[in-house]
Amino acid sequence: MDENEFDFIIIGAGVAGLSASMYGARLGMKTLCLGATFSSELAVGGVITTTNIVENYPGFIKLSGSELAEAIEKHARSYDMVTIRNEKVERVGGKFGKFSIETKKNRYSGKTILFSTGTKWKKLEVSGSKEFENKGVAYCALCDAPLFKNKIVGLVGGSDSAAKDALVLTEHAKKVYIIYRGEKIHPEIINMKRVEEKIKQRKIEIINNTNVVEIKGGEFLEKVVLDRPFNGKKELELQGLFIAIGHIALTELAEKIGVKLDEKKEIVINHKTSETNIMGVFAAGDCTDKPFKQAITGVADGCTAAYSAFELITKDQIG
Amino acid sequence: MDENEFDFIIIGAGVAGLSASMYGARLGMKTLCLGATFSSELAVGGVITTTNIVENYPGFIKLSGSELAEAIEKHARSYDMVTIRNEKVERVGGKFGKFSIETKKNRYSGKTILFSTGTKWKKLEVSGSKEFENKGVAYCALCDAPLFKNKIVGLVGGSDSAAKDALVLTEHAKKVYIIYRGEKIHPEIINMKRVEEKIKQRKIEIINNTNVVEIKGGEFLEKVVLDRPFNGKKELELQGLFIAIGHIALTELAEKIGVKLDEKKEIVINHKTSETNIMGVFAAGDCTDKPFKQAITGVADGCTAAYSAFELITKDQIG
Repeated sequence: MDENEFDFIIIGAGVAGLSASMYGARLGMKTLCLGATFSSELAVGGVITTTNIVENYPGFIKLSGSELAEAIEKHARSYDMVTIRNEKVERVGGKFGKFSIETKKNRYSGKTILFSTGTKWKKLEVSGSKEFENKGVAYCALCDAPLFKNKIVGLVGGSDSAAKDALVLTEHAKKVYIIYRGEKIHPEIINMKRVEEKIKQRKIEIINNTNVVEIKGGEFLEKVVLDRPFNGKKELELQGLFIAIGHIALTELAEKIGVKLDEKKEIVINHKTSETNIMGVFAAGDCTDKPFKQAITGVADGCTAAYSAFELITKDQIG
Repeated sequence: MDENEFDFIIIGAGVAGLSASMYGARLGMKTLCLGATFSSELAVGGVITTTNIVENYPGFIKLSGSELAEAIEKHARSYDMVTIRNEKVERVGGKFGKFSIETKKNRYSGKTILFSTGTKWKKLEVSGSKEFENKGVAYCALCDAPLFKNKIVGLVGGSDSAAKDALVLTEHAKKVYIIYRGEKIHPEIINMKRVEEKIKQRKIEIINNTNVVEIKGGEFLEKVVLDRPFNGKKELELQGLFIAIGHIALTELAEKIGVKLDEKKEIVINHKTSETNIMGVFAAGDCTDKPFKQAITGVADGCTAAYSAFELITKDQIG
């Protein structure tokens, strides 16, 4: 087998892709895992590295997202048959037995491929949101919270991730307003209790049934305009605004080669095998239509995908 | 809620059930996990505790099965809302909102239930196999290998588990004969390489296309009869015979309340949600029709089941 030929090429080096690499190698497949797929912020390790505390990966009572990603990366790197490279994939083509994967630097050939491309943050699209990005508007609470020490910040969103971001922000900011369009924020119960604790301490205040409609400021963000009055005013003075309104699956490359997506643009997989609609193409992790997107479920699906790829290669005797 | 009433009752305290407990508690469900379900050998921790070395649970490069089970049990026990009890479930009845679970000691009521009952060893059924059980015939290599120090032993089977058992046995026995009915044993490649290494060292010898048809001895096993000659003889002198011919899903309790099983008597689940055909009844781990049965996939499905149970309770507002 040539240097650039592989049995199994994984696009995306988050925890799902790294786990798939480990299993690929165990199954005797020459495996390549390519990180830095789309987003310049995210390389090997993936989106979990932006999570402060992970308490729900069974086996580890508590660790940081970076620590979990590092443990899984180390695990994958402990196998000689795994190659991990920080290269952005630009083009995918071919078919089962001979897929071609192009990056800026190299061209690889893979018998089977796995999309574990993850997601990117959904952007808030209101007047001023682009203008003030990195000037008060931020998406990664864990990365940027320390910049807002003793400041007043807002957090747009109502999910479990949003609540966790708000909790991270309270470690630094003086006060955090959670601004949520719905009736009631809906984190995991355990995180809701933590938020309630911070409400008692007046570190968090929730503004429900409300949208941010405009962001204003000078050089930096100074205030946001709400669509309903809060404390009698439609403007809220803030120094920072974090956005946690969800993620968009990074599935453009998959779509281009005909992989079936659902209406949310997530890759439709057979949840028993991690197969997509195209022979030899698998998908795992947050880019799929898995309803319960967690590190543990993405990791398990990565392992399943490696096994299915191995079964397919072995059965078709192209291995 | 009464002392014996729970939101989520888990039958089986292997790694899948323990992980489901942890997630159940995180989601605010009062959760009960019952071990020692069927088999007197196996209690909390489950079948993984009979595995010597686990190298394929992402995040841990290498640990013993017991260590992995303990880490996950500790994780589950770190939540107040989780109760873990060593009680054998005798009867299950009722329906969504009010399932009843009876053990010898107690009667519990659960809004939702999860079967994570695992498997038991498939028995070798030949003349003498029952007679010499625990007198040379054994099923748990990890438990019993030390009893065969410097002895000659056989190992019946050809799977990855069989190969791993054979490798454990070489740590103690003088020589291990793998007796396999098929053309060629089929472990994970990495374990096949390890077996090949032991063959070079003359610690392992493989006898393919052969069945054990009878087990003979006095007080203890002395020899096995093969259906084809090996080295010119149909009898092979051994002091021990380990059986690794697979597992049988422990699904009798599930079957009794109408849970759909496949032809292998495994619980048919929706692999996206871990739901069974009965509302409020979920299943995860080795007792399901998951094709790729690994600790990591069982654990992930346990977490998914907890989430689905939570969603169901919340949606139906019986929570």
